[in-house]
Amino acid sequence: MPSFAATPQPPYYVVAFTSQRGDDDEAGYGAMAERMVELAAMQPGYLGIESVRGDDGLGITLSYWQSREAIRQWRENAEHRVAQQLGRQKWYRGFRLRIARVEDEYGTDAQVPGRFTD
Amino acid sequence: MPSFAATPQPPYYVVAFTSQRGDDDEAGYGAMAERMVELAAMQPGYLGIESVRGDDGLGITLSYWQSREAIRQWRENAEHRVAQQLGRQKWYRGFRLRIARVEDEYGTDAQVPGRFTD
Repeated sequence: MPSFAATPQPPYYVVAFTSQRGDDDEAGYGAMAERMVELAAMQPGYLGIESVRGDDGLGITLSYWQSREAIRQWRENAEHRVAQQLGRQKWYRGFRLRIARVEDEYGTDAQVPGRFTD
Repeated sequence: MPSFAATPQPPYYVVAFTSQRGDDDEAGYGAMAERMVELAAMQPGYLGIESVRGDDGLGITLSYWQSREAIRQWRENAEHRVAQQLGRQKWYRGFRLRIARVEDEYGTDAQVPGRFTD
């Protein structure tokens, strides 16, 4: 995936998911994570994603959405619910999930890195 | 720093900073990043931070704040302004910064990983 999500003018929503992975089932986890990115992108109201995981297993994923309703629907997606359950039982030592309304955005151009847009 | 920020009941604010590092000046960048975390923690209205950088140089830092006014003051901090300038000129190939109001939070307990709070 590209580094930066090409999000629209605010307001829109972000789901900030911070998680601590364990060491086990790297293959199973990787396949699930890839599938969830694919599936989210097909969801109505999806705007983009940015995701990083460090060597210590701590990860942050920012997914962007048009509305709280779009987030609610994604949370209820059947295949996603199975992944959430497995995440709690098996893949994550812990996580925090925060839903927030984006009010301002600036930085370098998502399409033309190095060009500042603010 | 601990993995998860022990943030209060929403609402509060998050600054989501996604950045792409270049390869140069690893030592200078590391010292600055450490100093900015120290300095942010001394700022009025600071609530916590979560930060990850991957092997490809993509990083996400989530800093949490009581209010937009606290974020504005941190942005205007003199030493922080010097770091912002160097970031643009030297350390980052590109970045996106988003300011968002956190409306909901859940997950495992920040203090007791494995205990779910929702």
